[in-house]
Amino acid sequence: MHIPADLDTPALVVDGGRLEANLARMEAAASAAGVELRPHAKTHKCVEIARRQLAHRAAGLTVATLAEAELFARAGCDRLFIAYPLWAGGARRARLAALHERAELRVGVDSLVAAGQLAAAASSTARPLQVLIEVDCGQHRTGVPPQDVAGLAADCLRLGLDVIGAFSHPGHAYLAVDGVAAAAADERSALTAAGTALAGLLDRPPVLSGGSTPTVYDGMARPLTEARPGTYVFGDRQQMYLSGMAEGDIALVVAARVVSAPRPGEAVLDSGSKALSGDRPPWLTGHGLVLEAPEATIDVLSEEHAVVRGLRTPLAVGDLVRVIPNHVCTVVNLARELLVVSDGVVTDRWPVSSRRTAS
Amino acid sequence: MHIPADLDTPALVVDGGRLEANLARMEAAASAAGVELRPHAKTHKCVEIARRQLAHRAAGLTVATLAEAELFARAGCDRLFIAYPLWAGGARRARLAALHERAELRVGVDSLVAAGQLAAAASSTARPLQVLIEVDCGQHRTGVPPQDVAGLAADCLRLGLDVIGAFSHPGHAYLAVDGVAAAAADERSALTAAGTALAGLLDRPPVLSGGSTPTVYDGMARPLTEARPGTYVFGDRQQMYLSGMAEGDIALVVAARVVSAPRPGEAVLDSGSKALSGDRPPWLTGHGLVLEAPEATIDVLSEEHAVVRGLRTPLAVGDLVRVIPNHVCTVVNLARELLVVSDGVVTDRWPVSSRRTAS
Repeated sequence: MHIPADLDTPALVVDGGRLEANLARMEAAASAAGVELRPHAKTHKCVEIARRQLAHRAAGLTVATLAEAELFARAGCDRLFIAYPLWAGGARRARLAALHERAELRVGVDSLVAAGQLAAAASSTARPLQVLIEVDCGQHRTGVPPQDVAGLAADCLRLGLDVIGAFSHPGHAYLAVDGVAAAAADERSALTAAGTALAGLLDRPPVLSGGSTPTVYDGMARPLTEARPGTYVFGDRQQMYLSGMAEGDIALVVAARVVSAPRPGEAVLDSGSKALSGDRPPWLTGHGLVLEAPEATIDVLSEEHAVVRGLRTPLAVGDLVRVIPNHVCTVVNLARELLVVSDGVVTDRWPVSSRRTAS
Repeated sequence: MHIPADLDTPALVVDGGRLEANLARMEAAASAAGVELRPHAKTHKCVEIARRQLAHRAAGLTVATLAEAELFARAGCDRLFIAYPLWAGGARRARLAALHERAELRVGVDSLVAAGQLAAAASSTARPLQVLIEVDCGQHRTGVPPQDVAGLAADCLRLGLDVIGAFSHPGHAYLAVDGVAAAAADERSALTAAGTALAGLLDRPPVLSGGSTPTVYDGMARPLTEARPGTYVFGDRQQMYLSGMAEGDIALVVAARVVSAPRPGEAVLDSGSKALSGDRPPWLTGHGLVLEAPEATIDVLSEEHAVVRGLRTPLAVGDLVRVIPNHVCTVVNLARELLVVSDGVVTDRWPVSSRRTAS
């Protein structure tokens, strides 16, 4: 990826051509598998990219928070799945009701208490709220075990919620570099069980929604009717190991400047943890891949410093470098805008719109 | 700290009384030691708090980036030290010159190349730019070794820069829970050597600027003429170990909601790494202290989930909890605003103003 030499740093630079190629590749894979694509917008939090995903025949967007859903709905991207066990108490009740009125909304649920709040929020609106039961496929984060899906779904139906299916997240695919296929199999198994549990309760075939970028690259297969990859739009250093994305597929780099080179074989970049984020899976060494010095390691991050060690060719103060971050989702969340480049020229600036607290 | 029950979460809540007590305590300590206070504003990035620090007799503010300096200067806080080896090439040249014209600016330097860019930026202005030589006191991040201070200072003077002193950051105080006193001693030693090196070159006694919250709590002692603590305004979980701050001194918590409780002894909060940040020193277990369940561990963070394990008293879906974050500086950087509470009532909302990229 070519970037302009005079960039102010740190900056997030997106290669428009690679982004487009990543969107087209995922569209083709979903189409070939007969699976609907509902990409996770938490990765980019960017309306411009959401619109491109929808143009590439995404059935809608997935988001993680109510605030993200509100943002995309305001921008006209109104087929939205909040794939999260949303708490809709307090002031959220009116916000959720308003969003439900204006958007084609689906919400995740994994407890009776939260289901009650969702039903209360929807009670003032003209139609029932669509929900998907979250099933735990092995990450052991949120979600009920497969054997509890039928019970929770029946409770939700009694509360007046419109149960349309189940969803899962095979997040344990990220725990080891060779665990992707097993996590994908775990998810297929959990969603198969959930589908069986729901078949007797619903009058339509259930939506069975799953997938993350690594498991979707591993194959979109039945029982999944819907896939929710996020990171595929940009890729990152993790995905180079987990999804087989090549360096030439990575559509986002952090442009950073060498600000200090006080010791032989070392350099300090201005992309600290407030630019690169501290995310690092235990199986990955260092805090990003410096394309100008792939042999080196970003050994230590502090807030505004990244200490690079093991340089074979020295980097000099003032040099501009490109860093592929470990985990792009948390990196984008730290930025205000994405600089879009084509042939080394900035052609666009896209705002990152949905940073927050609160959610 | 009492917080309102109906808060939307995740949210950053500041206890106004505790904040004021922390400011007063640091003012008194600096005054007793005869050391000027120039607190680091990267912790709060908040004009309201900067003004309170100045009201508590801070000599000025420290910042880490040009963008932070510009922000505080615009707000009228114009005695500013960019304690960072600032790169002033490209479009930065005009920005730095403009800031130098309007503010009482000091900038850090640790290389001849960066010094040349600083001098070029200042050359269009009416007066020389004040710089401090960064000396490495043992963190081995940026800064020159003490024996190189005289040479770099002489080079800076030849370039027309106004060398007024040296600064250091004893960041290695954070590497181990029992390393604070040794890091503080390292810094005193490095600044003593820097002071000796500069004494023959300057016609005024040099500014010798150091300190972080832990080493400043350990004592503000000569040769330091200036201290730059940042985290003391709020405190955090790290500072409870490193600085001896008590739980009752901690002025900021992350308010979070239990969104799922799928397994006995566990609960999932909505404060993931996009709220709590992933910062965790190796000597600290877990990603924050849940005040409602101090026996438990925030074991795993994903972007919008915090998985709490080891609960002795169950937390229920919908419960509101307060989390003392590990490292408050990276947490505030993720937020849009700080909710100020007094006796459990929100009395103010202060914007966090200087999030970015670029810097």
